[in-house]
Amino acid sequence: MANEKNKIPVGILGATGMVGQQYISLLNDHPWFEVRYVAASPRSAGKKYVEAVAGRWQLPAGYAAHVGSIIVEDANDVSKAVESFKKGELSFVFSALELGKDEIKALEEKYAEAGIPVISNTSAHRWTNDVPVLIGEVNPEHTDIIPIQKKARGWDRGFIAVKPNCSIQSYMKPIHALAQAGFPSKRIIVSTMQAVSGAGYPGVPSLDMVDNIVPYIGGEEEKSEKEPLKIFGSIEGSVIKNAEFPKISAHCNRVPVVDGHTACVSLEFADKKPSLEEIRKIWAAYKGLPQEADLPMAPKQPIIYREEDNRPQPRKDRDADKAMAVVIGRLRPCNVFDIRFVALSHNTVRGAAGGGILNAELLKHKGFI
Amino acid sequence: MANEKNKIPVGILGATGMVGQQYISLLNDHPWFEVRYVAASPRSAGKKYVEAVAGRWQLPAGYAAHVGSIIVEDANDVSKAVESFKKGELSFVFSALELGKDEIKALEEKYAEAGIPVISNTSAHRWTNDVPVLIGEVNPEHTDIIPIQKKARGWDRGFIAVKPNCSIQSYMKPIHALAQAGFPSKRIIVSTMQAVSGAGYPGVPSLDMVDNIVPYIGGEEEKSEKEPLKIFGSIEGSVIKNAEFPKISAHCNRVPVVDGHTACVSLEFADKKPSLEEIRKIWAAYKGLPQEADLPMAPKQPIIYREEDNRPQPRKDRDADKAMAVVIGRLRPCNVFDIRFVALSHNTVRGAAGGGILNAELLKHKGFI
Amino acid sequence: MANEKNKIPVGILGATGMVGQQYISLLNDHPWFEVRYVAASPRSAGKKYVEAVAGRWQLPAGYAAHVGSIIVEDANDVSKAVESFKKGELSFVFSALELGKDEIKALEEKYAEAGIPVISNTSAHRWTNDVPVLIGEVNPEHTDIIPIQKKARGWDRGFIAVKPNCSIQSYMKPIHALAQAGFPSKRIIVSTMQAVSGAGYPGVPSLDMVDNIVPYIGGEEEKSEKEPLKIFGSIEGSVIKNAEFPKISAHCNRVPVVDGHTACVSLEFADKKPSLEEIRKIWAAYKGLPQEADLPMAPKQPIIYREEDNRPQPRKDRDADKAMAVVIGRLRPCNVFDIRFVALSHNTVRGAAGGGILNAELLKHKGFI
Amino acid sequence: MANEKNKIPVGILGATGMVGQQYISLLNDHPWFEVRYVAASPRSAGKKYVEAVAGRWQLPAGYAAHVGSIIVEDANDVSKAVESFKKGELSFVFSALELGKDEIKALEEKYAEAGIPVISNTSAHRWTNDVPVLIGEVNPEHTDIIPIQKKARGWDRGFIAVKPNCSIQSYMKPIHALAQAGFPSKRIIVSTMQAVSGAGYPGVPSLDMVDNIVPYIGGEEEKSEKEPLKIFGSIEGSVIKNAEFPKISAHCNRVPVVDGHTACVSLEFADKKPSLEEIRKIWAAYKGLPQEADLPMAPKQPIIYREEDNRPQPRKDRDADKAMAVVIGRLRPCNVFDIRFVALSHNTVRGAAGGGILNAELLKHKGFI
Repeated sequence: MANEKNKIPVGILGATGMVGQQYISLLNDHPWFEVRYVAASPRSAGKKYVEAVAGRWQLPAGYAAHVGSIIVEDANDVSKAVESFKKGELSFVFSALELGKDEIKALEEKYAEAGIPVISNTSAHRWTNDVPVLIGEVNPEHTDIIPIQKKARGWDRGFIAVKPNCSIQSYMKPIHALAQAGFPSKRIIVSTMQAVSGAGYPGVPSLDMVDNIVPYIGGEEEKSEKEPLKIFGSIEGSVIKNAEFPKISAHCNRVPVVDGHTACVSLEFADKKPSLEEIRKIWAAYKGLPQEADLPMAPKQPIIYREEDNRPQPRKDRDADKAMAVVIGRLRPCNVFDIRFVALSHNTVRGAAGGGILNAELLKHKGFI
Repeated sequence: MANEKNKIPVGILGATGMVGQQYISLLNDHPWFEVRYVAASPRSAGKKYVEAVAGRWQLPAGYAAHVGSIIVEDANDVSKAVESFKKGELSFVFSALELGKDEIKALEEKYAEAGIPVISNTSAHRWTNDVPVLIGEVNPEHTDIIPIQKKARGWDRGFIAVKPNCSIQSYMKPIHALAQAGFPSKRIIVSTMQAVSGAGYPGVPSLDMVDNIVPYIGGEEEKSEKEPLKIFGSIEGSVIKNAEFPKISAHCNRVPVVDGHTACVSLEFADKKPSLEEIRKIWAAYKGLPQEADLPMAPKQPIIYREEDNRPQPRKDRDADKAMAVVIGRLRPCNVFDIRFVALSHNTVRGAAGGGILNAELLKHKGFI
Repeated sequence: MANEKNKIPVGILGATGMVGQQYISLLNDHPWFEVRYVAASPRSAGKKYVEAVAGRWQLPAGYAAHVGSIIVEDANDVSKAVESFKKGELSFVFSALELGKDEIKALEEKYAEAGIPVISNTSAHRWTNDVPVLIGEVNPEHTDIIPIQKKARGWDRGFIAVKPNCSIQSYMKPIHALAQAGFPSKRIIVSTMQAVSGAGYPGVPSLDMVDNIVPYIGGEEEKSEKEPLKIFGSIEGSVIKNAEFPKISAHCNRVPVVDGHTACVSLEFADKKPSLEEIRKIWAAYKGLPQEADLPMAPKQPIIYREEDNRPQPRKDRDADKAMAVVIGRLRPCNVFDIRFVALSHNTVRGAAGGGILNAELLKHKGFI
Repeated sequence: MANEKNKIPVGILGATGMVGQQYISLLNDHPWFEVRYVAASPRSAGKKYVEAVAGRWQLPAGYAAHVGSIIVEDANDVSKAVESFKKGELSFVFSALELGKDEIKALEEKYAEAGIPVISNTSAHRWTNDVPVLIGEVNPEHTDIIPIQKKARGWDRGFIAVKPNCSIQSYMKPIHALAQAGFPSKRIIVSTMQAVSGAGYPGVPSLDMVDNIVPYIGGEEEKSEKEPLKIFGSIEGSVIKNAEFPKISAHCNRVPVVDGHTACVSLEFADKKPSLEEIRKIWAAYKGLPQEADLPMAPKQPIIYREEDNRPQPRKDRDADKAMAVVIGRLRPCNVFDIRFVALSHNTVRGAAGGGILNAELLKHKGFI
């Protein structure tokens, strides 16, 4: 089944880790892309993928047979990727590297410099000011920074585009929908209850997650507060300039849930305040470029509102629309700010590999890959 | 061991339920009180306590042998309690009744009317404006309403005093400590992660608590927002008048934890803003009447601050100081309000039976029982 | 999408319960059957299905839109089903009734008597000696009792066929495969770790399943020991006569897992003892009538063997092949008997609704419906 | 509080690990022993204990203030222990070393050789044939090997005594009680459900323990099958000779429970078969040397039988009698062997540090330390 004529050959950096596995699983039957290159740590390099993940594959879904027989390359060795590119077996890479932040930063740049576009899940380049942090529905216009980035770096074909942290996915679309409809937010206090898959494997010890929660995830609150400002920012000259609002305060907690980050949001509008009725209409009508362009990974309805008192719940709602939709519930007035609600997003699909694939689809749709 | 000469004989209404069991367990070796009367539903009435709870006892700790052989009375039949009172075998009752709110309200009044003080865990009389909602460290002066209550009702010896909902216990003491030190709060947004024991047994279905959380607990947010205002209120004439501040907005979530409610708190001060350093000193120095009077159930230090990044955690911190202390951590500036922190309290001890016992100790100390 | 021309119209008795929901979800896109009739308790009767399950729907997957608008009938009122049958809108029913055993027994007979075949998930008729207890791969020939059953009862079109308890699904196929290959079992000691979905909703309290397991499931051990003997039995005259072997001793435990029953099996052969190598070949080659007839719900490979040390695991393996395959691992010599292994089966799919649908497919394939 | 005149000064090797912490916590108020020496890896050496465990302390209970200020020594450096011994600050050590098996073996021997008795929790010396594997109630007479061991090794004051694996603790006492009463076992098939604390910290990943169980624990089944034979063995000449019976076949599973290993046991007697009534009497009457000598850590009643259908359960029963008792339930006839039952033991107390302390008490009682 490998070598389908019309599919774009893609590579996965960090292919044996949790997010790498999720990429490979989600790309099993992708209509546009096909995994033809996998790279990981030197320890895995030289093995068939099936051997490299033996006893480490975490997902209920498996991987395509042809992927199992691909020989894993050393992700540090960009020359291997260049060879594959020259043979027409690699067009771009998804980066799910699990290294130190500086190492990832340098390595992703090397791939881009070598002519291989990098669509990254890592946090390494999120604060590089000419690298777009993309959520397909929210800021597709930020791809306009890519030609500027290429030019500034002297890169020909390669570039770097990234996706934001998983913790913000559930609330970015609802607040974007409201802003777009004329109701921008001023201040937000959010408390998240995040799934253990977000920490990878082995990740969170079970002694911390049986009869327990942990009210702390290193670095997560900062990301949850700052990344939205870049995504809501605008291109000015050669960089993306951050928005000033909304001010966000995040409390990030780890809870014994496999997949699905839940956020309790209290929100104050900047000026006009829509009624709850209006808000629900705005969310129901919300569409973005991924929906308009009918991208394969795009959820039909990016925001699903559940009427029940006690929803969304991670196990019951995370898989909505290929696990790519945000599910919201409990919209009600806030006793302190204007409104409050609960939002849920699947962290390893929408918040990681699925979001990365949607970004790649967006970039292909726009002609960047 | 029954009939110890100098102990005050007490009764438990709703003795077979979760909170009733917790009362009985906590009173096993109490220096002042001894369980001599237990009442429950007609179904249990007439059985020995040991038989009534066979297969239903939920606690790792057991109950005193003499309690096992007490015959359970029908809680609806106040005359039985009166008989015991006359024989000197009952001085007052703890109410952990599990009935409809109106039924409890009426029944608790009947006991009080019959001369038997009622120290209640239920929510039935929390909004009766001449009934004090007591937290020993926070508003011990609200016991001053009791003579007024008695007079207004024409009650002789009986009265009703209650404790607040378990969900607010973790944040009431820290905000009281700050207010007392001259730093009252104006607005608070709090998100709780509450233990399943709070819903009793059978309570929350396991299908909702394996690989899941539920972002809703019926009625809990309203209690979490309003009860603090009564507790911070003041006696005016014949009633307790609510405070106006702090405005509280609560998001209440159920998580797979046995015991221990955790709260993520963002707080805005009304005027002056203490430094983080000052706050920690204020909390460390915080004491109330229970500590000054050295009440048996009082924690030595009502607020314990943990320096670690990832504390408090329910399983590791809930049992601090007989499960009566509040454990706080993660004090840091809030990106939207002034400060934020995480607070934890044991919901079935400090938040239920232990808090009720502390109230009884307070009332005895003040001569009301 | 309702009223597809060539699909057989089916009904679900007990359509609002956990197993009923699973039936409806699994039949969403079934190539042969279409849900056209739903019946439940009088409380739900008269409502649209969408209303009847509002706030009670438990599954991540939803239900077909046309099912949502079907009016729920009272399952006790067989005349309604007969009406639908006469209009060509009901051919047979799946019974997932949640009533007392005797009530179910009588009610299932009424449907059959009225001409409506009953394919049941309940335990009511498992010990009725002319009712077959079917596992498609193991005893498809037991359908031969159906004409005998009909004749004895004076039933014309209707009959009753049932499926066994979910707890035995994981070990029946592997021991049948071995028996068929000439290696019957004599004695088996099995310990199960069963998922909470097996107890329905609300089912097992979360207080029993957080930091806990329960080493007891009422009635489950008896079913796990006896039902295999009927399934391995043979038709003699007008009844199914039980087999004598294997003797089974079962320990049934409840564990905090959503779906998937795991069994630890120690097995002693009756006479010849295959090598571990032979056993794995036998399991790999195992096929039954469902595979030969290519029934829609049949797993391609009924027994999947995993080589890893630590598999099968419920969350990772329960969904194998539409959640209809048994996944086995850890085959090794037993220190006391001959061999031991771990087997896993999805309890609400293979062990409940999926198994019932496979039985219906088998009965259609054989011309009984 | 340190330096209590009459207490024996003890040391903990591996003091910062999970079992080391448990030792320190359990010895907080021990009437005979006082922790005066703590040793761990070179990484911790030189720090105060309070610093060495900052952020790593796992237990709800804390440690004595004087222990916090002890300087941690390097466990590899026996000379430090010898110095302390000479100053009268160390009499013997508890070994909870976390190193490779061969390293532990050599290191424990070095301590013994240097004159410091080693009471070990590790598995390193369990199969050294002149080292006793002690369970206080079961084989206290195996201490008779100690003089033989000392002589053979040319050791003066030092020796090594160990305790068995935690997985066997729950079923050893009940089968010993029966054997002692004239009903030895011939064959046992046991399936365990073991707590995550048994794997230490970080130990089992939470991704394996949310909505999951793992039917495998490396090396555990072998220990569960073989160690009982040494414990039931007898001293012959200069070694302990293993018993031949009972043959045990163990299935060891990891489940999401914090503490408490549960075992489902099917047992065949060697010859005479007691009635269930007799068995319960035998268990109720069971006492051993720890009870007769009234050792501080000994449970009053080593075997507690619970009558309820659904007990023992880990969370509710593991703490019985200082977490040192075995709790049994569900005694019933086995369909294949003679009897079956469920047994539970606290793995980090009775099965680890508590068992080690009881061994030390036994050895002191007998004059070995």
